[in-house]
Amino acid sequence: MELSEIFAPVENDLVKVKEALHSISKVDFSHLAELVNYSLKNTGKMIRPALTLLAGKFYNYNLDLLLNMATSVEVMHTATLVHDDAIDHSAMRRGRATVYRLWGDEQAVLLGDYLFAEAGGLCAATENLRVIRQFSATLKTISSGEIDQAYNSFNPGQSRDKYFSRIAKKTAALFSLSTESGAVLSDAPEESIQILVDYGYNLGVAFQVVDDILDFTSTEDELGKPVGSDLTQGTITLPSLMIMEKYPEDNPIVKLFANKGGQAEIDMAIEIVKNSTIIDECYEIAEDYCQKACRDIKKLPDCETRTCLEELAHYMTIRKK
Amino acid sequence: MELSEIFAPVENDLVKVKEALHSISKVDFSHLAELVNYSLKNTGKMIRPALTLLAGKFYNYNLDLLLNMATSVEVMHTATLVHDDAIDHSAMRRGRATVYRLWGDEQAVLLGDYLFAEAGGLCAATENLRVIRQFSATLKTISSGEIDQAYNSFNPGQSRDKYFSRIAKKTAALFSLSTESGAVLSDAPEESIQILVDYGYNLGVAFQVVDDILDFTSTEDELGKPVGSDLTQGTITLPSLMIMEKYPEDNPIVKLFANKGGQAEIDMAIEIVKNSTIIDECYEIAEDYCQKACRDIKKLPDCETRTCLEELAHYMTIRKK
Repeated sequence: MELSEIFAPVENDLVKVKEALHSISKVDFSHLAELVNYSLKNTGKMIRPALTLLAGKFYNYNLDLLLNMATSVEVMHTATLVHDDAIDHSAMRRGRATVYRLWGDEQAVLLGDYLFAEAGGLCAATENLRVIRQFSATLKTISSGEIDQAYNSFNPGQSRDKYFSRIAKKTAALFSLSTESGAVLSDAPEESIQILVDYGYNLGVAFQVVDDILDFTSTEDELGKPVGSDLTQGTITLPSLMIMEKYPEDNPIVKLFANKGGQAEIDMAIEIVKNSTIIDECYEIAEDYCQKACRDIKKLPDCETRTCLEELAHYMTIRKK
Repeated sequence: MELSEIFAPVENDLVKVKEALHSISKVDFSHLAELVNYSLKNTGKMIRPALTLLAGKFYNYNLDLLLNMATSVEVMHTATLVHDDAIDHSAMRRGRATVYRLWGDEQAVLLGDYLFAEAGGLCAATENLRVIRQFSATLKTISSGEIDQAYNSFNPGQSRDKYFSRIAKKTAALFSLSTESGAVLSDAPEESIQILVDYGYNLGVAFQVVDDILDFTSTEDELGKPVGSDLTQGTITLPSLMIMEKYPEDNPIVKLFANKGGQAEIDMAIEIVKNSTIIDECYEIAEDYCQKACRDIKKLPDCETRTCLEELAHYMTIRKK
């Protein structure tokens, strides 16, 4: 099933999110308008705003509030990507040049700040204090996860626990903000909010595990950026952890990290991952998180959207980009 | 008059702001704790949090709300400095190594993000939607001003209007958020809020003009960073604009910017500024803004704090660092 089919119940409103994203670039300062437009026009899969809208479907679907919040989470996500690319000196993202590549790190850092503020303003427009507080808390969590990742780059001595704790912060936190805010803004009862928070969280972990698999198994064409980027950046992910677990005595990761890079070691790591059970094992773990995500959603009101959430969880483990 | 005397009415509460700043670094992740502690412990003049507290003194001084907001503006200010230093590759700030210098640009960018989120959370804790909205709007304004400055670095073709418009964004906006939030959180009537917004705004412009003077006239010891940093970064400020106005045919600024740096030209520019009427003219302009700041404050309730605001405006033009 394609993502567009899964998002069918909120398809029209996702178009409105895209319009809202476009309108953010309508500012007097033409250079800023260009930067904002460039960073927001080439949206990705729109999973986060879709989650906010879908989570809002179970109770009182208030389009105005949900649109602001759905736009907010997508803008916050974009801001983090703009900063990530500046930090990692990444030239490509989603198949085209990054803001960092085109305008340099100064502009990328400041544009990211601007977008964080824009996301905060959109969230504030919901006038819901719980959602506003959660927005700030989530941005703290994400930044803390990113700081942890950067601090531990090229450090091979990391555990699975550390890995899962980090991806919970850097990815799952925003997924669960997306679902929590949708639930809160549609006046869902507390039990349903918690089910949707857990759904978002577990879906986010599964999403990141699959992202980390694809960095080994996909192609530059499908990824829109070079394969093996995580290893190039010195980031340990689940597949590379498994290489180290399986070959504790002699493995390319430790060598790669000791030298802070080396294409031969990256190629070897990719080969090992592809020619072993590592991919299957990683997918099993991702599937476990997807099942956890769906465990309690039967307690939500029975509707088309509930099925969508299950299909979205299934999609997580079959996606190719 | 010393700043500490001017801040006397809120002296004890500024100590509480410092305690609140200190408590932000109490997080489980020890590396993050170190970064946060380092960036927040060496506070500067604390003008922004003092403004929030002072502006709150005219009506219902609600310490809990005002403390959160005063801490928020100081954290937001620190976040912008951490990002500025990363962007400018500045090694020194307030007489010691910057976060950028000690931990690199990755950590500085991500720490800045974390601090923006922390500031947002502190602001959200006021539960005042007007203040929350203004917080996001201000961060957008500041980022937009910084983007403008970076975009126009080493561009000698800039006007006074452009300069004042930029410093209004990058500096005065946070000064006026500081006073506005203090006024709003103390239930000031709308007319008083507006007087305090205008006070903060004009004080902020004066503050930045004097900052830009000191970059020419002060010493590295007093500034806590190298003299002439603005020219090194390619930033046009009021003194360098005046050099270009006075010597349109032959001046060191155009030469400096054409070569993107050159210590001989910077030294020459500093000499020209020091041996001309430029400093006096800049101070006159700063004084005009200070007078504008104080123009309407007589309409505020007559109290000790009103005098403090006048003294603070006077301090702006006599400060040496």
